[in-house]
Amino acid sequence: MKHFFSISDVDNLQGIVAEAIDLKKNIAQFSELGKGKTIGLIFFNSSLRTRLSTQKAALNFGMSVIVMNVGSDGWKLEMEDGAIMNGDAAEHIKDAARVMGAYCDIIAVRSFAELKNRDKDYAEDVLKSFMKYAGVPVINLESSTLHPLQSLADLITIEEYKKVKRPKVVLTWAPHPKALPQAVPNSFAQWMKNADVDFVIACPKGYELAPEFMEGVALTHNQDEAFEGADFIYAKNWSSYQMYGQIVSTDLAWTVSAEKMALTNNAKFMHCLPVRRNVVVTDEVLDADYSIIIPEAKNRVTSAQVVLKRILTAMQ
Amino acid sequence: MKHFFSISDVDNLQGIVAEAIDLKKNIAQFSELGKGKTIGLIFFNSSLRTRLSTQKAALNFGMSVIVMNVGSDGWKLEMEDGAIMNGDAAEHIKDAARVMGAYCDIIAVRSFAELKNRDKDYAEDVLKSFMKYAGVPVINLESSTLHPLQSLADLITIEEYKKVKRPKVVLTWAPHPKALPQAVPNSFAQWMKNADVDFVIACPKGYELAPEFMEGVALTHNQDEAFEGADFIYAKNWSSYQMYGQIVSTDLAWTVSAEKMALTNNAKFMHCLPVRRNVVVTDEVLDADYSIIIPEAKNRVTSAQVVLKRILTAMQ
Amino acid sequence: MKHFFSISDVDNLQGIVAEAIDLKKNIAQFSELGKGKTIGLIFFNSSLRTRLSTQKAALNFGMSVIVMNVGSDGWKLEMEDGAIMNGDAAEHIKDAARVMGAYCDIIAVRSFAELKNRDKDYAEDVLKSFMKYAGVPVINLESSTLHPLQSLADLITIEEYKKVKRPKVVLTWAPHPKALPQAVPNSFAQWMKNADVDFVIACPKGYELAPEFMEGVALTHNQDEAFEGADFIYAKNWSSYQMYGQIVSTDLAWTVSAEKMALTNNAKFMHCLPVRRNVVVTDEVLDADYSIIIPEAKNRVTSAQVVLKRILTAMQ
Repeated sequence: MKHFFSISDVDNLQGIVAEAIDLKKNIAQFSELGKGKTIGLIFFNSSLRTRLSTQKAALNFGMSVIVMNVGSDGWKLEMEDGAIMNGDAAEHIKDAARVMGAYCDIIAVRSFAELKNRDKDYAEDVLKSFMKYAGVPVINLESSTLHPLQSLADLITIEEYKKVKRPKVVLTWAPHPKALPQAVPNSFAQWMKNADVDFVIACPKGYELAPEFMEGVALTHNQDEAFEGADFIYAKNWSSYQMYGQIVSTDLAWTVSAEKMALTNNAKFMHCLPVRRNVVVTDEVLDADYSIIIPEAKNRVTSAQVVLKRILTAMQ
Repeated sequence: MKHFFSISDVDNLQGIVAEAIDLKKNIAQFSELGKGKTIGLIFFNSSLRTRLSTQKAALNFGMSVIVMNVGSDGWKLEMEDGAIMNGDAAEHIKDAARVMGAYCDIIAVRSFAELKNRDKDYAEDVLKSFMKYAGVPVINLESSTLHPLQSLADLITIEEYKKVKRPKVVLTWAPHPKALPQAVPNSFAQWMKNADVDFVIACPKGYELAPEFMEGVALTHNQDEAFEGADFIYAKNWSSYQMYGQIVSTDLAWTVSAEKMALTNNAKFMHCLPVRRNVVVTDEVLDADYSIIIPEAKNRVTSAQVVLKRILTAMQ
Repeated sequence: MKHFFSISDVDNLQGIVAEAIDLKKNIAQFSELGKGKTIGLIFFNSSLRTRLSTQKAALNFGMSVIVMNVGSDGWKLEMEDGAIMNGDAAEHIKDAARVMGAYCDIIAVRSFAELKNRDKDYAEDVLKSFMKYAGVPVINLESSTLHPLQSLADLITIEEYKKVKRPKVVLTWAPHPKALPQAVPNSFAQWMKNADVDFVIACPKGYELAPEFMEGVALTHNQDEAFEGADFIYAKNWSSYQMYGQIVSTDLAWTVSAEKMALTNNAKFMHCLPVRRNVVVTDEVLDADYSIIIPEAKNRVTSAQVVLKRILTAMQ
C-alpha cells in the first residue's frame, strides 16, 4: 500500500478485514515494525478518536509520533496554484507538504470540508496536494469527502458482530443542529457497496449522497421500512449534497429510538462518534446492550494498525 | 491503587511519602515498569508544571504519553445525564471517557472549577464521570475542588525539609487579582490534617474553606499570630467558598513579606506556583534561601511517579 | 557546547559544518546518545519546520520530547524584574524557566520579536532569562534577533552545493505584506561573515540591519548588481531596523524572478521558508532545478542534530 486515501487503495477488502482482526491478536509481534520511523499527524481540524487511535496504533509499532495542529501551532496554508500570496496564508501547501514529508516517514492528514463550495470540497485539494508533494505515504484521517479509517473500522466491527453471512446494513440519516460534512456517509457507502452485505441508505428527500456514492445503492425515504429486518443500524447526520452544505431537514421523527430499533432483526446500533445524544439517537439506544459504539471506536486502533502495517511493509 | 482522585485513595500516608522519597533515588530500576502502556493526559485547562511533570514521570517508567487539550484540540463536552444535545457540546462526557479509556491504559484529567455554581463544582462531575466510564485508572491532575498530586508533592517536600519531628505548617491566604479555585487549599488541608504536623489556616474572614476541609483544623484570621513559631509557610490565594467564587478581600497586608517571615521559626516558604510576584509574596521572600518553591516543584515529578508506580503495579 | 544561543557558542565554524555533514551519514550510530534524556520544546510562537525538525533530531538520539505551546497550553509570562504582577501575566519567566529546567535535561525556546520596542527586542530577555534561570542547556529556536539553527542549516547547505571554494552569497531583501522580524537576516549575516564566502547584502534604503550585523559586510541598494556573479541567492523579507518594525518598502521590483536569477553565475536559490509565493519570489524560481529550498529545509534536522550532539556530549 502506497497511500491510504480511499477504498481504491485496498486491493482485497475481505483480505484487509481478516488481516486486521488477526493483527489485533498478534500486535505484540510487530512492536518493532516501525522502529526508527516517524509519523506526522497533521490536523487542520479538531479530533479526539482519530488523534488518539492513530497515535496508539503507531506507538504499537514502535514508531515516533509528531503531532501538528495547523492553525493553532502553525499558520494558514495557501491551496491555490499560482496564487500571489499577499493575503492571510503564510505558506503554500506544496511547500508545507514537501517539508513535512522531508521530516516524517509517513504523513497522516485531517482536513474537513468547508461546506461552502461543493466543487472545491470534492476536488480534495488538501489530501491530493499532500499525496502529490510530500514524497512519502499519506494517510487520510478524514478529508473533505471521505473517512476511510472509520469505514474500515466499521467493516471490521460488522464482521466481528454479524450473525448471518450476509447481514442487512442500514445507513440512516438522523437530525443534528449543525451542518456536517458528507465524508462519513460517503465513505461508509463506498465500503459497504463493496462488502458482502445488503446495504440500504435511508434519508429524507434532499439528502441523497453524491451520484458516485449512491450508484448501485438501495435508497429509501422511509426509515421504518429500511429498519425492517436490519442486522446493523448505522446512524449519522450529514448536510445536503444537492443544496450543498445546507440543513434541509431537522425532522426529529428521524431520531433513532428504541421503538425504531424494535422494527429490526435485533440489530446492533453503530455510530462513528461524537454523537449528539437525544437528537441523533436516544440515550436508551446508545446505552442498550445492542449498542456497539465502543467496540466500534476501539476498532479505530485496529483499522489504523492494519493500514500502518501495510504501508510500513511496503516501505521495507 | 485503582484511581488517584483524592487522599482517600492512599491507605498509608507515611508509607507513600517514604516510598516516593525512596523511588527518587531508584527510579532507574523502574524504567520498564510501564513499557507498552499508554497514559492519556486530558487537559480541559492550561497547565505547565502538571503537563511537564506528569509526562516526565510517565516517561521515566517507559510509558507512551498522549496529550489531548480538550477545547483547542477537540470540542466541548456535555456533562448532564439525559441532556438533549442540540447546543454547543458535540459529545457527552460518558462517551468521550469510554473512548479515551478504550485507547489508553491510564487516563489523567485536569478540569478546573468554573466558580459559577458551587454545588456543580463540588459535585466533581468531570472526574467522577471519567472514573465511572473510562474503565481504566484515572488520575486527578487538579479537579474542581482537589489537587492531590500537588498536596502529595508538598508533603514529600515538608518531609525532606523538616527539622523537627512534628513541624508547624501554616497555610496562609494571600491576595491575587483574579478569582481562583479552592482546589489547592482544600487538598492541602486534607493532606495536612492527616499528616504528622501542627496545621493552621490563616485567612481573612469570609475565606474559610468548605466545612469538610475546615473540620478539625485550627483557624485564625490573624496572619501574624499564625506565623509565630511556624516551620513552613504555605501561601496561596483562593476565592471565597461562602460568597462562592467571589473576591472578598484584596488586602495587601496579607502579602507574604520578609518582615512576616521574620516572625516564624526560620520557616521555609512554599507555594505551588504559578505565583504572582509582589502580590501574593514579595520577590525578597521568593528569592531567599528559605524559599523551597523549586524543590517543591521538582517533587511534582516525585509525587506523579509514586502514584503511577502504585497504579501500574496494581494493574499487573 | 553549553548553550546554543548564537554563533558565539560555536568555537570552530568549519568544524561544526564538517561534523554535521558527517553526522547525517552516521546518525544511526548515535541512536542511544540521548537515551533517558528529555528535551522540552517551548513555543511562544507558531512553528512548523522548527517544531518538526527539532523533534526529529531529538528522536534520532533516542530522547524524549515534551512540547509546550505557551499561550495556548499555558499562560502569559512576566518578563520584568521586580514587577508587581497584578496584570495579565500569571507567572514570572524566572520561575517558569527554573521549573522547566527542573523537569527537562535540555530546553529549546522560540520567542519572536514583538517589533514594538527595539531596545526590548534586542535585549533578548526571554532567551537570556532561560539561560540564566533554567539551570540546563538552552537552545535558540528563533529568538527576537537571531535564528542560529536556520543559519547553521543554511551554511551546511551552501557547503554541500557550492562549486567553487569561496562562493559569492547574496542575501537579498524581498517584499512581503507583513512586518517581519530581523532574526533570520541578522543571523545569516553573522554566520556568513565568519564563513569562507564572499557575502553581500542587497536591500532598499532603510533596510540596513543593525550595525553589529552590517559591520564588515558589503552592502548595495542595487539588487541587479548584487546578483551578478552570485553562486547563491538567499531571499528574505524583514522589517526596518532604523524605522523599527516598519514596512518601508513594498517595491515588487525586488521580488526574485527568473530574469533576476539569469543575472547570476547559475546561482542556487535559497529561502528559509515559509515563503510567500509570487510576492517574495516567483513560482518559476521556487520550482526551478536551481531552487534548493527543500534540501535546505531538510538540513534543519542536520543542524539541530549536530547542536544536540555537542550539547549531549558536553553533559556526559
